[in-house]
Amino acid sequence: MEKRDTILSGIHLGLYTDYYELEMAQGYFYSGKKDEQATFDYFFRSNPYQGGFTVFAGLLDFLDLLDQFSFSQSDIKYLKKQGFKPEFLEYLRDFLFSGNIFSVKEGEIIFPNEPILKVEGNIIECQLIESLLLNILNFESLIATKAFRIKLVAGEKIFADFGLRRAQGLGAFHASRAAYIGGAGSTSNVLAGKLFGIPVSGTQAHSWIQSFDDELDSFRAYANIHPENTVLLVDTFDTLNSGVPNAIRVAKELEEKGFRLKAIRLDSGDLAYLSVKARQMFNEAGLDYVNIIASNQLNENVIKSLLQDQNAAIDAFGIGTELITGKSDAALDGVYKLTQVDDQPKMKISENIEKNTLPGKKQLYRFFDTAGKFYRDAILLENENPESVNHIYHPVYPEKNSSLSECTSEALLQPVVQNGKITLRKQLLADIHSYLMERSAQLPDEHKRFISPHLYKVGISKKLMETRDTLTKQLKQKIDSIKDG
Amino acid sequence: MEKRDTILSGIHLGLYTDYYELEMAQGYFYSGKKDEQATFDYFFRSNPYQGGFTVFAGLLDFLDLLDQFSFSQSDIKYLKKQGFKPEFLEYLRDFLFSGNIFSVKEGEIIFPNEPILKVEGNIIECQLIESLLLNILNFESLIATKAFRIKLVAGEKIFADFGLRRAQGLGAFHASRAAYIGGAGSTSNVLAGKLFGIPVSGTQAHSWIQSFDDELDSFRAYANIHPENTVLLVDTFDTLNSGVPNAIRVAKELEEKGFRLKAIRLDSGDLAYLSVKARQMFNEAGLDYVNIIASNQLNENVIKSLLQDQNAAIDAFGIGTELITGKSDAALDGVYKLTQVDDQPKMKISENIEKNTLPGKKQLYRFFDTAGKFYRDAILLENENPESVNHIYHPVYPEKNSSLSECTSEALLQPVVQNGKITLRKQLLADIHSYLMERSAQLPDEHKRFISPHLYKVGISKKLMETRDTLTKQLKQKIDSIKDG
Repeated sequence: MEKRDTILSGIHLGLYTDYYELEMAQGYFYSGKKDEQATFDYFFRSNPYQGGFTVFAGLLDFLDLLDQFSFSQSDIKYLKKQGFKPEFLEYLRDFLFSGNIFSVKEGEIIFPNEPILKVEGNIIECQLIESLLLNILNFESLIATKAFRIKLVAGEKIFADFGLRRAQGLGAFHASRAAYIGGAGSTSNVLAGKLFGIPVSGTQAHSWIQSFDDELDSFRAYANIHPENTVLLVDTFDTLNSGVPNAIRVAKELEEKGFRLKAIRLDSGDLAYLSVKARQMFNEAGLDYVNIIASNQLNENVIKSLLQDQNAAIDAFGIGTELITGKSDAALDGVYKLTQVDDQPKMKISENIEKNTLPGKKQLYRFFDTAGKFYRDAILLENENPESVNHIYHPVYPEKNSSLSECTSEALLQPVVQNGKITLRKQLLADIHSYLMERSAQLPDEHKRFISPHLYKVGISKKLMETRDTLTKQLKQKIDSIKDG
Repeated sequence: MEKRDTILSGIHLGLYTDYYELEMAQGYFYSGKKDEQATFDYFFRSNPYQGGFTVFAGLLDFLDLLDQFSFSQSDIKYLKKQGFKPEFLEYLRDFLFSGNIFSVKEGEIIFPNEPILKVEGNIIECQLIESLLLNILNFESLIATKAFRIKLVAGEKIFADFGLRRAQGLGAFHASRAAYIGGAGSTSNVLAGKLFGIPVSGTQAHSWIQSFDDELDSFRAYANIHPENTVLLVDTFDTLNSGVPNAIRVAKELEEKGFRLKAIRLDSGDLAYLSVKARQMFNEAGLDYVNIIASNQLNENVIKSLLQDQNAAIDAFGIGTELITGKSDAALDGVYKLTQVDDQPKMKISENIEKNTLPGKKQLYRFFDTAGKFYRDAILLENENPESVNHIYHPVYPEKNSSLSECTSEALLQPVVQNGKITLRKQLLADIHSYLMERSAQLPDEHKRFISPHLYKVGISKKLMETRDTLTKQLKQKIDSIKDG
């Protein structure tokens, strides 16, 4: 695959990890386990926003950073000071991830407890990359999901990512990327625009207007310099009594020069009321082509209410804080769990049976109904043939099960890294977004609503269930033997 | 000041900005305003977490990145493609911030509506750096505040930042830095540890334990390799029936070799109940020195409840999601507003009078009572002598005012950048944290409580009030003249 720029181009990222990954890696190294072959699954346990789906994002960003996951001379020196031992540091000096990664496509619609991504390699390399993987995939998936929820209510109306100033520092760059995948039409973040090929957009700030003696002068000056692309911020002093009348004057002056005022932006006050009033004033002035952009504390629920309940006359939205940080959720709860070592399936058991992990190497299938809509997802052991699996079972309540007859299936985990080399072809973010839109069309509407969405069913095969139950029994026997003696 | 490494060392960061900053900059350039001298204030409008204070953080990080705020050849090419004009691009080619910055100290305790930081320079440079400034200062201040709230309830008990995997991508690096300023004792984020000199720490993950045939074997292997620093994760299979008994066995074996098991970690279940039970089991085994670390969805409220209401036997905490993302708040609402151009004070007026900005070049003073505690903060015009200011006024209700007799005062805004050069001396993060602790001792307790904290009073001088009121009157007259005609 072509080399891409990352914001961290040229920097060694081996320390982009949690300290315990390195301590465990050293532990594996000195416990004679360094050549054991491990498999880890990445999955999450609940959809963000109490929603019915999650959008997978961050894959290419993660792989690009993984390509830089190595240790510089100075990193090794730092680790030596932390007490890591010489032979292990020698090992790290040449470290590069050399395993395999299988993943669902970026932009895929995914559901809780599914293996979204599977990593195979020696146990040290699989362990070391955990933190980077979770750091990128959890966050970008959260933001892509948030953006797509906004897209679902905004429909054909465009919304832009205005979040850089409220973003979590450099987190902004991942967020702007993911927001575009989810449906934002553009970003204000210029570096993200350059790095990821996202259209950039922006208007003007209050400081522009304040820097002039007069609002009208400031509008005129701006229109003079950007006559073909003028958006005027109308709330610096008084939206309806000053901002809109001045904008109308400038729009008329632009017309005389053969241009059209593109839009105004409302950034405070009651957006529904002000947009309707402003629309009316522009229309009465014969300027029905001037768009109205709204910003200020927007999210999917506010936009839904503005458009569906309040008939706001808003043509486009600029969204900051909530889009860029994923508010009201702070993080996707994705985890990375060991499922196999050499030939032995592994699992973690929990007092909460729903938190038991699914052991072994697995493949994720999506089954479609005869109308081509998502019907069920199913987790099978890797070597099972989906054609021969006719029933899948609820992971906790096997009496709940589904027949898969008349369904077609698709294997969702596909190789993206083989022997350490990225094999996934380069993709435009716009294409990833298009893929999401295709998939969204196949997802029944009842999973897309915001309030009490219908639960999409993800089942497991009988063989996987049996593998898990056998292993659980063995582990419980071991615990009993400790308890009893 | 010594050059420090940033995670982005060597990268041009001129595009780390919102698109509209560049459009406005081009506008100023072609409107004959490029040499106008501007002053901007950074301030925020409400304390996060409905708290009574905010901790200022991010200053050094921001200044380091500002030092890289310039445009590469390839950036200029990119902007050309976006339609920016040749003379302006020539101007950007040599761009470096050449103005002055005044700031409160990093680690300072700050309050809403105070000018925390003041930028002076030509209007283009002041405008261009807005997004970077807000991006870093808003986020680090949020996280330092969050961490300090945790510190207030954890007291002498140590807590570590375990958040990398749930952080907002690269936002993690700012967050780990700010968390340490606020009071985290260490971070799991190794690269942040190296870049910022933060102690790193970590334990082990479930994968370590699962990778062995047996929990006991896994504990033994770990203790073998890290005998002086072993922390055992005890909840992989069954905390009280397997994890703790196995840990006790390994602790005894370590004793035989002359070592002491450092701690166990609880990562699920009822932390209060399990910690008390585990404490009892260790004590009965004569292992009262083994510490108990708890993690899993912690925040200041949960920790307060564990320690104060539930008598949990927990010695230290590992905190992930909420510390690293600042949940339940997504962002500090800091803004950056133009206050003066050349000799003219500037302001923005709003339908909500509390949102009117304070015009002119100002200084922020802290007044201390005779016991040395924070009494009032006051915003004065820059050229006022605080000695001659005896009364300060509520910014909205002037009938509320305070006498400052018998107070001593301190000017909080101090130069940190002069003519584009960083003059602030290099500081260790540990020293920034110490400064916060000193200041916290001076902040009366009623401002520190979590529920309905007492509002700390910030007033303005009579001269500032008059400047603002005169300007407001002029602006309103202008609006009326538009309305009337």
